Amino acid sequence: MPAEIERKFLVTGRGWTGHAGLPVRIRQAYLAQTDKASVRVRIKGDDAAFLTIKSAVPGLSRLEVETEVPVAEAEELLELRQGAVIEKQRYAVPYAGLVWEVDVFEGENAGLVIAEVELPGEDFAVTLPDWVGEEVTHERRYYNAQLATDPIRGA
Amino acid sequence: MPAEIERKFLVTGRGWTGHAGLPVRIRQAYLAQTDKASVRVRIKGDDAAFLTIKSAVPGLSRLEVETEVPVAEAEELLELRQGAVIEKQRYAVPYAGLVWEVDVFEGENAGLVIAEVELPGEDFAVTLPDWVGEEVTHERRYYNAQLATDPIRGA
Repeated sequence: MPAEIERKFLVTGRGWTGHAGLPVRIRQAYLAQTDKASVRVRIKGDDAAFLTIKSAVPGLSRLEVETEVPVAEAEELLELRQGAVIEKQRYAVPYAGLVWEVDVFEGENAGLVIAEVELPGEDFAVTLPDWVGEEVTHERRYYNAQLATDPIRGA
Repeated sequence: MPAEIERKFLVTGRGWTGHAGLPVRIRQAYLAQTDKASVRVRIKGDDAAFLTIKSAVPGLSRLEVETEVPVAEAEELLELRQGAVIEKQRYAVPYAGLVWEVDVFEGENAGLVIAEVELPGEDFAVTLPDWVGEEVTHERRYYNAQLATDPIRGA
């Protein structure tokens, strides 16, 4: 079970769009969120789906177990969710040797744009692109599980 | 996602033991239990592990999605559990054309013995063996998720 080290920022401009590939449509929801773990179902595009369990420990590193499930089963699992289905378009954006993921939210969180980057290590000195603003890595209200119950309308 | 139709009974005698094969040791725990679903991690023997999501709808039929995960990941997922780890030895016992599963609980539920049978349909007229007693299919306190938080000491 690899530890995932991620940092997350609000996106402030459109500077990333010129470097982005085609987006993948993501629909996801949470089946549960406890004091120890979250259980997520995610459908990527039309042909891939995943069940993901992440530990709820605070800090940058989180334990994560992800397993692929048939899309038809994932669709049925969505019915067992808590909160709303989150919908977003995810763009891969290469920058300074890393690949950022820019999520453009739709539906109830329409207008919100968040950039995430996975780091090779906790001490890695990441170079920030000029199209990211405030860091929200530790801000609970930007957790996807939170956005499913308390949506944020972006600017 | 197949609907699972099961009936569950307390075991009252040792009459099943002569027909049982070798048991499989099962360790399992629940990562979450919501109003809509339960999320279970199960390790069977030393070499197989599964993540299982069952709908919480009342009645005999339950929706179920099960996916195999590496045992090492399952061991780590056990740490994210709610309640205790349930330990039991599971015996397969053929009877009247069906295969019953007899679970002999250990640990905090030591002494409890439960028999379950999966039916081909909701209206299937099952022939009960004489070593089963009270039916507990709908009794919440015999749900495994419940036994993880409120153990029952068998007779």
